[in-house]
Amino acid sequence: MKKAKISNAVIRRLPRYLRHLAAIRREGEERTSSSALGARMGLTASQIRQDLSCFGEFGQQGYGYNVEKLYQELREILNLHQEKDAVLVGVGNLGHALIHNFKFRDSGVRLCAAFDADPARIGTQIDGIPVLDAGTLSSYLSQHPTVLAVLTLPGRYAQQTAETLAECGVRGIWNFTGFDVTLPPEHGGVVVESVHFSDSLQVLSYLIGNKD
Amino acid sequence: MKKAKISNAVIRRLPRYLRHLAAIRREGEERTSSSALGARMGLTASQIRQDLSCFGEFGQQGYGYNVEKLYQELREILNLHQEKDAVLVGVGNLGHALIHNFKFRDSGVRLCAAFDADPARIGTQIDGIPVLDAGTLSSYLSQHPTVLAVLTLPGRYAQQTAETLAECGVRGIWNFTGFDVTLPPEHGGVVVESVHFSDSLQVLSYLIGNKD
Repeated sequence: MKKAKISNAVIRRLPRYLRHLAAIRREGEERTSSSALGARMGLTASQIRQDLSCFGEFGQQGYGYNVEKLYQELREILNLHQEKDAVLVGVGNLGHALIHNFKFRDSGVRLCAAFDADPARIGTQIDGIPVLDAGTLSSYLSQHPTVLAVLTLPGRYAQQTAETLAECGVRGIWNFTGFDVTLPPEHGGVVVESVHFSDSLQVLSYLIGNKD
Repeated sequence: MKKAKISNAVIRRLPRYLRHLAAIRREGEERTSSSALGARMGLTASQIRQDLSCFGEFGQQGYGYNVEKLYQELREILNLHQEKDAVLVGVGNLGHALIHNFKFRDSGVRLCAAFDADPARIGTQIDGIPVLDAGTLSSYLSQHPTVLAVLTLPGRYAQQTAETLAECGVRGIWNFTGFDVTLPPEHGGVVVESVHFSDSLQVLSYLIGNKD
């Protein structure tokens, strides 16, 4: 597979491609085209061709794309085919909602344990996921090497917890705290992906205000 | 203010500008520059200048940007200075988390009521927000014109509820259901902004897999 430098914008569009391809796949279509995919996604056919060409030659002139093949290759590019163990830190309403409703498996993630500081929650289970004492996070991670951590605790604990996670070998932090975590240079290899709810609400606010 | 056609990519960066400007403002800085802002945000100075020039002439050669002025103007561009009434539909864990933790006010949104179908929740309050019977949503909206709705109910109810909301005059739907809502053409004026958690997790998965 070609491994050119991929722009951030293209990377951020890949999950959308995957979602739409998953839907086309469920509908039983065997092939699709840049223009059909584009119409569905609100992108031009040339944009689609350009995006997908960053990762190699998927399409064939006059045939288009084989849906199953493109779907599987995108999953591979996104590294979803490799199962990654994860922990979740902070079992408040949001943490609970993610454990209960979010399909981690579909993104190649195996949620193994959750952590909280509240004695009323420690020792319970949510959909089979044990809630452990936040004080045992480091020792857990030393015994169970873990690639990913989901941060759903209050923002004031975000930075310190992220540093602990990085020290314990976690390589990716999915940050829902609303706090912009910055890791010191010695943890430069750890990726922090933040979900800022307000960003999306503000875009909605803009679009409402500027709708023709 | 200039109102050229603004690209989607620029619009989606504006909340990030606002977040960083809010932080600079809290730190007490009165002015900033394209390069300082860029360094903070991981963008080039020329990208910053180009983005902000879409909305008019904010910066001054040799001075840079007045933080307060740029902050207020971005809030205005994003339409955050106009208070918008909102309802939330679906008071499960995620809905509860948003009501309890998310600062709607900071995005110019006044959350007025929540709706749920569960008799155990109807009639309760969460942080002063009344939880009303989902069966009364239409009649509520006819009496309380509402611009925004937050959808935090199970995906299988998303489409039907979105259509009801659009029929009742809601102009923007903030969709957390994971289901891609599509409104019929007669509701073409209604904007749906979806928060797809999986998109962000999959980008994280890519970045971990491709980190040098």
